Amino acid sequence: MIDIKHPLIDHHCHGTIRAPLDRTGFEALLSESYMPPPEGTSQFDKPLGLLIRRHCAPVLDLEPFASPKAYVERRQALGVEEVGRRLLRASGIGIYLVDTGHRSTRLTDVGGVSALAAAPAREVVRIESVIEGVAREGGDAATFAQRCEAELRARCVDAVGLKSVVAYRSTFKIDQTRPSVQEVEAAASRWLRALDTSGGEAPRLSDTVLLRFGLWMGIDVCREKRFPLQLHVGFGDPDVYMHACDPTHFTDFLKATEPLGVPITLLHNYPFIREAGWLAEIFQHVYYDVGAILNFLGPSALSAMRHAMEMGPFYKQLFSSDAFGLPELHYLGAAQFRLMLGRVLDSWIADGACTPADAERIAEAISVGNARRIYPLAGV
Amino acid sequence: MIDIKHPLIDHHCHGTIRAPLDRTGFEALLSESYMPPPEGTSQFDKPLGLLIRRHCAPVLDLEPFASPKAYVERRQALGVEEVGRRLLRASGIGIYLVDTGHRSTRLTDVGGVSALAAAPAREVVRIESVIEGVAREGGDAATFAQRCEAELRARCVDAVGLKSVVAYRSTFKIDQTRPSVQEVEAAASRWLRALDTSGGEAPRLSDTVLLRFGLWMGIDVCREKRFPLQLHVGFGDPDVYMHACDPTHFTDFLKATEPLGVPITLLHNYPFIREAGWLAEIFQHVYYDVGAILNFLGPSALSAMRHAMEMGPFYKQLFSSDAFGLPELHYLGAAQFRLMLGRVLDSWIADGACTPADAERIAEAISVGNARRIYPLAGV
Amino acid sequence: MIDIKHPLIDHHCHGTIRAPLDRTGFEALLSESYMPPPEGTSQFDKPLGLLIRRHCAPVLDLEPFASPKAYVERRQALGVEEVGRRLLRASGIGIYLVDTGHRSTRLTDVGGVSALAAAPAREVVRIESVIEGVAREGGDAATFAQRCEAELRARCVDAVGLKSVVAYRSTFKIDQTRPSVQEVEAAASRWLRALDTSGGEAPRLSDTVLLRFGLWMGIDVCREKRFPLQLHVGFGDPDVYMHACDPTHFTDFLKATEPLGVPITLLHNYPFIREAGWLAEIFQHVYYDVGAILNFLGPSALSAMRHAMEMGPFYKQLFSSDAFGLPELHYLGAAQFRLMLGRVLDSWIADGACTPADAERIAEAISVGNARRIYPLAGV
Repeated sequence: MIDIKHPLIDHHCHGTIRAPLDRTGFEALLSESYMPPPEGTSQFDKPLGLLIRRHCAPVLDLEPFASPKAYVERRQALGVEEVGRRLLRASGIGIYLVDTGHRSTRLTDVGGVSALAAAPAREVVRIESVIEGVAREGGDAATFAQRCEAELRARCVDAVGLKSVVAYRSTFKIDQTRPSVQEVEAAASRWLRALDTSGGEAPRLSDTVLLRFGLWMGIDVCREKRFPLQLHVGFGDPDVYMHACDPTHFTDFLKATEPLGVPITLLHNYPFIREAGWLAEIFQHVYYDVGAILNFLGPSALSAMRHAMEMGPFYKQLFSSDAFGLPELHYLGAAQFRLMLGRVLDSWIADGACTPADAERIAEAISVGNARRIYPLAGV
Repeated sequence: MIDIKHPLIDHHCHGTIRAPLDRTGFEALLSESYMPPPEGTSQFDKPLGLLIRRHCAPVLDLEPFASPKAYVERRQALGVEEVGRRLLRASGIGIYLVDTGHRSTRLTDVGGVSALAAAPAREVVRIESVIEGVAREGGDAATFAQRCEAELRARCVDAVGLKSVVAYRSTFKIDQTRPSVQEVEAAASRWLRALDTSGGEAPRLSDTVLLRFGLWMGIDVCREKRFPLQLHVGFGDPDVYMHACDPTHFTDFLKATEPLGVPITLLHNYPFIREAGWLAEIFQHVYYDVGAILNFLGPSALSAMRHAMEMGPFYKQLFSSDAFGLPELHYLGAAQFRLMLGRVLDSWIADGACTPADAERIAEAISVGNARRIYPLAGV
Repeated sequence: MIDIKHPLIDHHCHGTIRAPLDRTGFEALLSESYMPPPEGTSQFDKPLGLLIRRHCAPVLDLEPFASPKAYVERRQALGVEEVGRRLLRASGIGIYLVDTGHRSTRLTDVGGVSALAAAPAREVVRIESVIEGVAREGGDAATFAQRCEAELRARCVDAVGLKSVVAYRSTFKIDQTRPSVQEVEAAASRWLRALDTSGGEAPRLSDTVLLRFGLWMGIDVCREKRFPLQLHVGFGDPDVYMHACDPTHFTDFLKATEPLGVPITLLHNYPFIREAGWLAEIFQHVYYDVGAILNFLGPSALSAMRHAMEMGPFYKQLFSSDAFGLPELHYLGAAQFRLMLGRVLDSWIADGACTPADAERIAEAISVGNARRIYPLAGV
């Protein structure tokens, strides 16, 4: 049996909720839904719920498969910090790359994750959040692009990568070229004026010209700093038009960026894992993971890992937990990854399809080696 | 081994053909094709054909894997009624919810199914068939909407749910809002005039304004009567443009109806089972099944059930046979469901991914409990 | 255990590279990518690389899992011809149907494949290449269609089928009707004029009117000569817009051609294998294979074969290697096919889902029988 003992590099995760959680609050973080489950049902009654009861309960000193009630009570008794410390430190994750762009005030920041985990953490900067922050400050449209670039560069001082959620905001079915300076200024002007009259609403970037501006600005900064660019793909909340988040709708962008040497990492990819593996096979700079999916599929996660191992080159897959809010999700993301990748490789060895030495090499690459090669982690 | 012994609730099926069937007629009902198989081949030479020879032959007193010839001859010798009685009574289905909207004159009606099965049956009313019936009677466009609503309500007296085949008629790539009264009247006027000059052709509803009218009328009636609304998704006959029947193309409709409290059940879902499970995860009111698919996949049906068990909450999946015409399909739908769900849960127990008690609870919910919760079956 | 010993009919493959290959050249043919893998990585580090080291190394007298370096050196020492002879003769392929339309000057031709393999080979003519050849010769637009037809017929004298790569050139999201004579002449006129001023660039057919002309001309010739028409689907190089190469986007063409009696064979189909099986289920004349995919999925190829065995009738699936350039790919295509089909059928027998006799019959049909039925191979 392959034993994946390398401290993993979690190349895409989020912070943990800082406030204590009651049962309702805890369950809400087990789902991408905007609404609670139907009356009389519980988010524990799904694959991810089984995982938590099985794997996390013992970390909190409960028996495996403790009841949801017992689990949440024990969690409350231990306190948010102790729960976070236990789960992160038991996860086997050696380095955390933290996307700080989503609901960041409710979450531990990069330093907070590092402290809880007693392990190094580095930042991944979400492009759209930076642009929204600049918009929040107002100013004139003529200097908007310039101010975004300055802010993005400033935010990158301690970062190791950028991330875009363009799939959420406009889907991948958009013009994928770099917009002209004039187009960006005109779009910024429209948006800033609309924000002015919106009565202080938080800006949400969804204009496709500005999203494209952000993407290409991101490519420029990534080239300069030798960062990868992370792209959200597929699985997510009700804002996703799933059919239009198939990453093969972004072929023109991938083609256009291939000669530029910026690694592009496709995140999650469910239910387009096969498509992602194919893109990684045909484009030199495309990488992929199945982050979040191994958690949400619970006992069936082998299916996602099998798809991830179908066509993609072994030097292209990455590990991420995509954990958000609950340290359970970091812990489980790593546990499921080790278990499922181990099972695939064990079955390959059993079939005579690869040698144990090949399997070890493949496991090391996906767990650590590929992320080390494409992220600037020297000294971490 | 999990043993699923609950009398199942088949939340979506059709009646059985009343006329005797020769080999050609029997084979035609094994396929969604409009044409016979190529010369020299037989519909028995596919996964569903293996299932019939394996599982149904013994119910008709033949050895498992009897030849196609022997099977059809035995069927003819026993007679349509006896074959129907044997297969339905052996199916383990406790309640039949029967869609009466497709080729209904050739099929046993709700009472007929109930009599053959010696079990209760209730009606699911197909919205498009009701509208087509009103159109057949002519009348003026100004009162068309009103007459459709009156007729739908009249048809619902003994029903427990509604169904729409909008995916067949227009695909899911349509405007999904409720049309205005004026738009409906104009569309009805165009359609009724066209029917007037068509020389008595049976009306087939395919106008998207009227289809949307039907859907939203259906939502109104479902709210009032606490019915679920069933939606055909994916797999079907050559009228389907499959890529456009991906249920994620219907996201706007699902978003718009989520606050209304009407459960929406996605039927079949092949090859979009993962998409359906994701929709059930993110929308409070979305349910799903893999009806018909477990039959058509024969020995490979485990693959469909595994996808159905990937991400969808356990309180969201339903059982249906989607049997049409042949009582073999009701029998096999139930047999395959028990076998494949049992195998998935057995493998979870063997992996330590859930306890036997959890598995029992999950099996009960998908077999019976979820349908009981969302359909008005009190007293059945 | 099912033992598939029939000499296979490889209904779709290409010739082998005639020039010697160094490591870089060899690796380039292991991928559909236009660029080399990232620095420090190797095309051997992917599923197909494992297959070559495992299965092909012994054919070249090396230990299984020889190193990439040792493998390429041994290949060079034996020489291109000897490597080709060994791998093709060991493949168990009895008849090769060779697409001659892609990079044909670098490859062995039909006779060359036959000589290396010591087995019969027949030609499959690529429609687009024929049209490009006619365009290369210039001439006037008024006679262009006529000249294309004459050339296609001339090329078909020793052929057994036609092939179209319309999916590559325009995707399947196009008008699928036959263009009028006037439209074809106008399109030819535009194209020939553009070629005139292009300074001798090799013509590449991508005009959708002319692609449609080619398709329907192909149907005419296939009807006349009782040839199947092969269609590239899905998996391929960066020219593919994958989402638009879902074969269900070609439903109108399939519907329109169903009454004409020309078998249409869908090639590769990844990641749309389920869609292809469904199309084969509902359209009398649709066939499918998973050529190339069993190679590119390496140890995971069972997954593709399982999908291929889900819904498609057993009289509709075909074997192909889709090998291009490397005789390793012919050898592996056949080895993977026998291994994976055997595993599926063995599991069916073990489950009691079919008898050994049924399994033998199914294996024979997919390996040989279906191709024999639809290709004009009498006397081969």
